[in-house]
Amino acid sequence: MNLLKETLAGIRVLDQKKMAEAKERLDSLTKPVGSLGKLEEIAIKLAGITGDVFARVDQKVHIIMAADHGVAVEGVSAFSQEVTIQMVNNILNGGAAINVLARQAAAEITIVDIGVAGDVSAEKLINRKIKRGTDNLIKGPAMTREEAVASLETGIEVVNELIDKGANLVGTGEMGIGNTTSSSAILAAITGLPLDEIVGFGSGIDQERLIHKKKIIKEALKKNRPDINDSIDILAKVGGLEIGGMAGVMLGAAGRRVPVLIDGLISGAAALIAQKLAPEITGYFISSHKSVEPGHSKIYKQLGLNPMLEMNMRLGEGTGAILAMNLVEAAARIIKEMATFAEAQVSQSNQC
Amino acid sequence: MNLLKETLAGIRVLDQKKMAEAKERLDSLTKPVGSLGKLEEIAIKLAGITGDVFARVDQKVHIIMAADHGVAVEGVSAFSQEVTIQMVNNILNGGAAINVLARQAAAEITIVDIGVAGDVSAEKLINRKIKRGTDNLIKGPAMTREEAVASLETGIEVVNELIDKGANLVGTGEMGIGNTTSSSAILAAITGLPLDEIVGFGSGIDQERLIHKKKIIKEALKKNRPDINDSIDILAKVGGLEIGGMAGVMLGAAGRRVPVLIDGLISGAAALIAQKLAPEITGYFISSHKSVEPGHSKIYKQLGLNPMLEMNMRLGEGTGAILAMNLVEAAARIIKEMATFAEAQVSQSNQC
Repeated sequence: MNLLKETLAGIRVLDQKKMAEAKERLDSLTKPVGSLGKLEEIAIKLAGITGDVFARVDQKVHIIMAADHGVAVEGVSAFSQEVTIQMVNNILNGGAAINVLARQAAAEITIVDIGVAGDVSAEKLINRKIKRGTDNLIKGPAMTREEAVASLETGIEVVNELIDKGANLVGTGEMGIGNTTSSSAILAAITGLPLDEIVGFGSGIDQERLIHKKKIIKEALKKNRPDINDSIDILAKVGGLEIGGMAGVMLGAAGRRVPVLIDGLISGAAALIAQKLAPEITGYFISSHKSVEPGHSKIYKQLGLNPMLEMNMRLGEGTGAILAMNLVEAAARIIKEMATFAEAQVSQSNQC
Repeated sequence: MNLLKETLAGIRVLDQKKMAEAKERLDSLTKPVGSLGKLEEIAIKLAGITGDVFARVDQKVHIIMAADHGVAVEGVSAFSQEVTIQMVNNILNGGAAINVLARQAAAEITIVDIGVAGDVSAEKLINRKIKRGTDNLIKGPAMTREEAVASLETGIEVVNELIDKGANLVGTGEMGIGNTTSSSAILAAITGLPLDEIVGFGSGIDQERLIHKKKIIKEALKKNRPDINDSIDILAKVGGLEIGGMAGVMLGAAGRRVPVLIDGLISGAAALIAQKLAPEITGYFISSHKSVEPGHSKIYKQLGLNPMLEMNMRLGEGTGAILAMNLVEAAARIIKEMATFAEAQVSQSNQC
């Protein structure tokens, strides 16, 4: 618990002075003022996060938290639970979508077993298993409060190690059959929005199973009554180990002034947990894609983020976050590498 | 005129068989079917364009057509005409936004003087000047029909040379003070939409000048009465040399079965010209960003495209197109590098 407390205490508001400096620099570059839109917003944000107008984001890491969900036995997913471990192996072997996209974005993948139901052993896997999957959340809490805190602290530790080795941009991804169910439950608990506006088809269920999924989430919330003012309680009762791990990664990165990319519904649910623990953290978040999941736009709204990519994606693993890494790198390079009007001897606008 | 005719005759519909093969391959990969959304659509399109399920898009070129507009004297832009030549030099020196983004995307820039009003000489500049800027379109046609055809054929020649050297993905960009005025006029002529829905703030004019810009476009259309059924007539009367050059690049690339990225308003206006000359060409287009310019969404609708990036950008130079190159490369790598369910021994969905 000390690590969590210390981390939360260390998350500061963004450096406003550096953000103003970044804005001034951007306005001096050879382009109409503000014409690079969100790339300029990211460049300003990076200055505020890192305290450096010329922030570096060239050591990109993508952390995948993998865990199982007791609720999978209720048939809420289009895939069976064994797929979690199979996909962990696929990621370890470099064959999953996230591996391909990571290579394209020149990012290193770190995969953490924070609660897979079966045994995986591989040199490249970080084994930080807290338990063999959560308990079934319609029968009681998914995990204990201690386990929830452990998942958060695991995330903090994992990201700290990567930052110690030089990471300066962090993507968040996950693997866990059943985790859109948990994520939707977290979102419902935090926002109070009706399930019809939140719950989606996940990895590809049909209409009938969607109705069943909503029923399960409703039962879980009724059974567990998570305390809306206590995000650790929400995480423990209806969350997941990988969701806690991801929230921990976000908290840890922000504590070290490193920007974090938010992906889809699950990453977003983790971001909501993190936001309740440390409201200033949203300054450290960078948006990525707009997921097909209906709950995703609600999360982005709650976080004050706007997606940059509209790819109609719903794969998970952090595939949206990793696609956005090139955009963040582009933003960091724009502020550093573009010529100013003075340097390039270009006449400025006569309109302002 | 022969080159144009031959090129138009050589543009074929996409290879449906290869697209079906690509779809089948994508559905066998370790992800929920269709869950990579637009990345999968691009991978299928690339198969249809190139006739190769494993299409390569690793030789990326970005062609910038630069030219001046006689209408600039009417004060339709926030920048004076001299900025065209200054920015051409800035691009040649590597200091413009497009240079930075091209380096990030590992794309080569080719810059063509197809009609800059002043003299530029530099080893890296391709000098294909047709005339020293168009004539003022409120006083008569911007150029002759012959000049319009020459601009199209210049584009075809430039892209053909690059494809001969191995280019397999083409971005389209431009530099030309006043060219949102021409582009909006083209859009209005082709779609018949009211100017209030089309004309925007360009590089950053104020409300007063926006009203003036609309008045100028209205006058230009009234004076020249471009023939809606004849896109060369539209290009000649209210277009621009760089717009013709870009349309030529698109036609030339499609004729060689190479995908082309469409950027913002100006690139979009060129795409409309190309579409009227060869309707099958839209199959070769890949969308990029959603520009802030109000006319842009009308163009994408007319082309049957949906933007992938929402960056609130309005810079020009093809900055949106070049940002999308990493996405196209990601799509090409997904279909080639991901493991199948069988290879990775992952259980498939029980839902379909």
